[in-house]
Amino acid sequence: MEVSWGDCDAAGVVFYPRYYAWFDAGTHAMLTAAGLDHHTLKRRHGALTPLVKASAGFASPATFGDTLEVRSWIAEVGTKSFRVAHRITLGDRLVVEGEEVRVWALPVAEADGAPGAPRMRTAPIPDEVREIFSGASPGSA
Amino acid sequence: MEVSWGDCDAAGVVFYPRYYAWFDAGTHAMLTAAGLDHHTLKRRHGALTPLVKASAGFASPATFGDTLEVRSWIAEVGTKSFRVAHRITLGDRLVVEGEEVRVWALPVAEADGAPGAPRMRTAPIPDEVREIFSGASPGSA
Amino acid sequence: MEVSWGDCDAAGVVFYPRYYAWFDAGTHAMLTAAGLDHHTLKRRHGALTPLVKASAGFASPATFGDTLEVRSWIAEVGTKSFRVAHRITLGDRLVVEGEEVRVWALPVAEADGAPGAPRMRTAPIPDEVREIFSGASPGSA
Amino acid sequence: MEVSWGDCDAAGVVFYPRYYAWFDAGTHAMLTAAGLDHHTLKRRHGALTPLVKASAGFASPATFGDTLEVRSWIAEVGTKSFRVAHRITLGDRLVVEGEEVRVWALPVAEADGAPGAPRMRTAPIPDEVREIFSGASPGSA
Repeated sequence: MEVSWGDCDAAGVVFYPRYYAWFDAGTHAMLTAAGLDHHTLKRRHGALTPLVKASAGFASPATFGDTLEVRSWIAEVGTKSFRVAHRITLGDRLVVEGEEVRVWALPVAEADGAPGAPRMRTAPIPDEVREIFSGASPGSA
Repeated sequence: MEVSWGDCDAAGVVFYPRYYAWFDAGTHAMLTAAGLDHHTLKRRHGALTPLVKASAGFASPATFGDTLEVRSWIAEVGTKSFRVAHRITLGDRLVVEGEEVRVWALPVAEADGAPGAPRMRTAPIPDEVREIFSGASPGSA
Repeated sequence: MEVSWGDCDAAGVVFYPRYYAWFDAGTHAMLTAAGLDHHTLKRRHGALTPLVKASAGFASPATFGDTLEVRSWIAEVGTKSFRVAHRITLGDRLVVEGEEVRVWALPVAEADGAPGAPRMRTAPIPDEVREIFSGASPGSA
Repeated sequence: MEVSWGDCDAAGVVFYPRYYAWFDAGTHAMLTAAGLDHHTLKRRHGALTPLVKASAGFASPATFGDTLEVRSWIAEVGTKSFRVAHRITLGDRLVVEGEEVRVWALPVAEADGAPGAPRMRTAPIPDEVREIFSGASPGSA
């Protein structure tokens, strides 16, 4: 993944919310590689995987033109939630390390076009998905 | 609207795609002020207003801490499309001027969870909406 | 702060990296209110305040059209670092709560136009700034 | 280039300002391929290439998971400005077509840390660069 000019802030380094966008892309790439892309999640399970927590440590800066590697893997699977670890490196150098905690969530039916954010409720992760999660090898974005 | 640090690129000026995000916000603010927010559009008309064209001229730069004013108004209403004009200023100074051409579009029914982008087809703008558009006074974001 | 259409993802809720962008804007708004905007930091102190850690808990979703309040305040001042707490609410409802750990950093001189990210080294927070930080009351973005 | 979840808006299609970010990345990729990356531009020429105009036509939608190809090439070289054409496709299907007009600009010296956007003035494109521009073959981002 190459850092672009627009990913950087006025100090010339990556604007830190961008790293979270790459975490998110890493999660989706990993789920897709495991056969659980968004369309499949929606069609087969009617599920989404919203975030409940995220954190990151910024070890060293990166700038436009740098080629980063994003590695994402499932670090823990709970009953209704799972933890995704992320590691972004530039060659041998660690740039950012972090994690996301996500829940398995099903939309709550409501009137179409109702104002406000779509409502969801958490639910147990289906066994079929849990098995995939447990075996999911690290993915890259 | 205050320009934030993260809106700027490594040259210390607003990263130009951000202006288009403010155009988009200006359009939505104007439609909302006219009683045509997204929820209403979806519930009453089942409609979206996707873009077919956008353009902008960048007259002068802006940077973090600057307070910009975004003015957006409907410049023209066609059968199935409408043109929104935008003017972003910093005090008396013009920063960006541009426009969006949007169409009135209805989703095409398809299997839930079908892969690919949601399909839509253009449709005539309803008279009720056309009247609102014709009278819509400039809005600000 | 009004959530715009482009702040949301395909599930119709705020794309979570956006909350960090609002944390960052909250920090800058607070520093500016305390007389420590970027230009002053650079001119008087030659300093930047890069991030070393950030974390957030996502309590409830928000969507386009929602008006959020971002409150940011300095929760702790160390020798070379400080901790900024953030709380984003929608009316009485908590949406996101989180914090940033930032360091006081001075650029390391290097050849102009040298490739790679600008280099910086941490330094003790000057007393004059420490006093301002200790008295900084909560700011809003 | 793969479209990520966060590139999409609440309608499930790419939020249009993102296309301009990819135009910008396409321009930088093309300039870098021609030996004119930002660091070189700054060090050898002291120059930046800010935008004066941009426009795009949105032919068809794209969504997360789609793999897009961005082609960018210099369509015209003027005395002080140049025009970059962009074409984004999904397989055989045209998604977006557009262009940027950029100028050759040199920073105007000012007090370090002076508030306001950095000031620049346009200047003639050096012959050495003009030759590179004239021969620049299409690049991809």
